[in-house]
Amino acid sequence: MSDFSKIAVIGGGSWATAIIKMLSENLENIGWYMRSIYAIEHIKRNKHNPNYLSSAELHPEQLDLSDNLNDIIASYDVLIFAIPSAFLHTELQKLTVSLENKIVFSAIKGIVPETGLIVGEHFHDHYQIPFENIGVITGPCHAEEVAMERLSYLTVACQDEEKANALSKVVAGRYIKVTTSDDIIGTEYAAMLKNIYAIAAGIAHGLGYGDNFQSVLMSNAIREMKRFIKKVHKMKRNINNSAYLGDLLVTGYSVFSRNRMFGNMIGKGYTVKSAMMEMSMVAEGYYATKSAYEINEKNGAKTPIINAVYNVLYAKKEAKDEFEKLTNRLN
Amino acid sequence: MSDFSKIAVIGGGSWATAIIKMLSENLENIGWYMRSIYAIEHIKRNKHNPNYLSSAELHPEQLDLSDNLNDIIASYDVLIFAIPSAFLHTELQKLTVSLENKIVFSAIKGIVPETGLIVGEHFHDHYQIPFENIGVITGPCHAEEVAMERLSYLTVACQDEEKANALSKVVAGRYIKVTTSDDIIGTEYAAMLKNIYAIAAGIAHGLGYGDNFQSVLMSNAIREMKRFIKKVHKMKRNINNSAYLGDLLVTGYSVFSRNRMFGNMIGKGYTVKSAMMEMSMVAEGYYATKSAYEINEKNGAKTPIINAVYNVLYAKKEAKDEFEKLTNRLN
Repeated sequence: MSDFSKIAVIGGGSWATAIIKMLSENLENIGWYMRSIYAIEHIKRNKHNPNYLSSAELHPEQLDLSDNLNDIIASYDVLIFAIPSAFLHTELQKLTVSLENKIVFSAIKGIVPETGLIVGEHFHDHYQIPFENIGVITGPCHAEEVAMERLSYLTVACQDEEKANALSKVVAGRYIKVTTSDDIIGTEYAAMLKNIYAIAAGIAHGLGYGDNFQSVLMSNAIREMKRFIKKVHKMKRNINNSAYLGDLLVTGYSVFSRNRMFGNMIGKGYTVKSAMMEMSMVAEGYYATKSAYEINEKNGAKTPIINAVYNVLYAKKEAKDEFEKLTNRLN
Repeated sequence: MSDFSKIAVIGGGSWATAIIKMLSENLENIGWYMRSIYAIEHIKRNKHNPNYLSSAELHPEQLDLSDNLNDIIASYDVLIFAIPSAFLHTELQKLTVSLENKIVFSAIKGIVPETGLIVGEHFHDHYQIPFENIGVITGPCHAEEVAMERLSYLTVACQDEEKANALSKVVAGRYIKVTTSDDIIGTEYAAMLKNIYAIAAGIAHGLGYGDNFQSVLMSNAIREMKRFIKKVHKMKRNINNSAYLGDLLVTGYSVFSRNRMFGNMIGKGYTVKSAMMEMSMVAEGYYATKSAYEINEKNGAKTPIINAVYNVLYAKKEAKDEFEKLTNRLN
C-alpha cells in the first residue's frame, strides 16, 4: 500500500488552499504544485496565498512548494488534484513522469471538456489508472469556511475502503469531519451536476422567482440527480447523504457560488457571452451542462432542469420562456 | 359529494390571508372567520388585512366575513383551518354546530398541544370526522410570496382523490401550482417536523456554525424526517417531493422563519423563556419539539436532531454542548 504521509496537492486555487490547510493539521510535509511562481514566493514570505483564500494562514515550513508538476508528481505517492476541470487536460499534457502506482484523488467538481469525462473516468481511461487507485474528495464545503475553521463535513470516496480511510485520517481534524463512501462515480457526478442546478437557481432568481420556487427547484433537482446518476452507475446509494444532497444545497443556496451568479446574470438578461466575460472565474457548470446533456441524451433519464439550462446556454432559447415551460414540469 | 364552491377559511393570520387570496381568483364567494371584528371592518373598508400579509389586496365583495365561528361553519361545506395549532383547541370549544359531513382541510403546521395530535388526527379522534373527509394543504410556501404573486407550489393531500382534486382546482391559478397526494399523515408530520429542524438551523446559526454545516444539517434532517414518519405511518412516499423536502428547505433556509429566529436567539444565549418573550408570535416548533420527542420515544426512530433540540428547549441542556454532541451524530 502507498504511503499516505506522502501527499501532494495539485492546484493553487481556493479549494486547493483549503485542502492544504486541512492536511497541514496532520502532516509534517505536503507537496504543493501551483503554476504561479509569484504565488509560491508570496506564500513562502507571507504565509498566505495571495490570490485565493488569502485569509487562511499557511505554514511554509511544512510545504514543499513547486511550480514544476513533474517534480511534485515524481516525489509523492498520493496526488490530490484540485484545479478547475477546464484546465486539467492542459496541465496533464506537461507530464513526463508516469502516474503508474500513484493514488489519484480528485477534488475537482466538473467534467474535463476535452473528453467529456468526469475526472476519475478521465484518469482511468487516459492514464490507465485502475479504479481502486482513484478517489474523490467532495463537500458540501465552501473553502472560505474551512479558512474560518467552521465545522465542515467531507466525503472521501474510493472503491478501496482502506485508501478512503487512509485519506480520511489525514484530512479530518478539529473542524473537518469525514465520511467515507465507495461511490466514486456517483459522488463525482453529483459534484458536477450540482453546478448545473446552481446555474438553474441563479437563472430563476434573476428572472424574479422567489424562495418558494427555489425550494421546489431544489427538491426536483435532487430527484433529477438521482435519476441521472442511476443511469450512469446503478448502485445502492442514499441520494440524501451529504455528498449528494448536502453538496447540492450548499451550492444551490449560496449567493457566493460562481455558478449561481452566472445563472443570475443570464436570468437578468445578460447574454451567455457577456455573462462569461463579466465573470473573471470559470463557472464550471457551463461545461457541465453540455456534457450532462449529451451523456443523458444516450441514457434517457428525465432531466427537465438540465434540459432547460442547456437550452438557455447552448440552444439560444430565452431564459424566461424556457423556465416558464420548466415550471410545468416540476412538482 | 360536498360542494367545493362553498368553502370557508378559519383564521385571520398570514397563511389564512394567503389562502383567501388564492381562492379569490377562482370563487365568487368565500366564507372567512376571524376573531377580530376590528380586522374584519378594516378589510371591508380598506381591502387589506391590517395585521397580516397587509400587502395582499383583498376583494371584500367576494368575502363573507364573520367573527362568529358557528355561523361560518354552519354555512359552508368545506372548511380550511389556518389558525396556529396552539389556538385550535380553544377555538373549537366555541363550536355549537356540528362538523358532521363537513370536509376539513388543515393548513396548520403543527401539533395541537392539548392532545399531542396533528390536526388531522385531532379532528378524527375528537370530532369523529372520517379520514376520507380530512385533508391537508401544505407548502413549500411563504405566505409573503403569495401576496407578491410569486410562483408557488402547494400540495393538497386527501385519502379521497376526488376531494384532493376538487380542492386543488379552487386554489390553483396563475401563480399557484398544485400537486395532490394521498399521504395526509406524512405531509402533516413533515409540516410539523420541519419547524423543529428550522429551530435546529437557527440554534446552529446562533452558535456560529456556517453554511457548510447547515447543508449537512438539512441533509441529515430529511433522512431523520423520513425515519420518523415511516414509524408513524408506513407507506410508499418519496421524501424528496416538494411537500416534504421542499417544505423543509423553504423553512430551514428562511431567515424570516419564526422558528429559525427563535432557535437563533437560543443559540446566541437567550434562555428559552426570554426568547419566547422577545418574539410576539408563537414559534410552533417549540410545541412540536415536545410532541415529536414524546411520539418518537415510543416509536424509536433514530432522531438525533429532534433529541438535541428537545434537550435544549426542555431539559435545560446548554445549546453549545448539545450541538457539539450532535455534530458527532451527523454525517
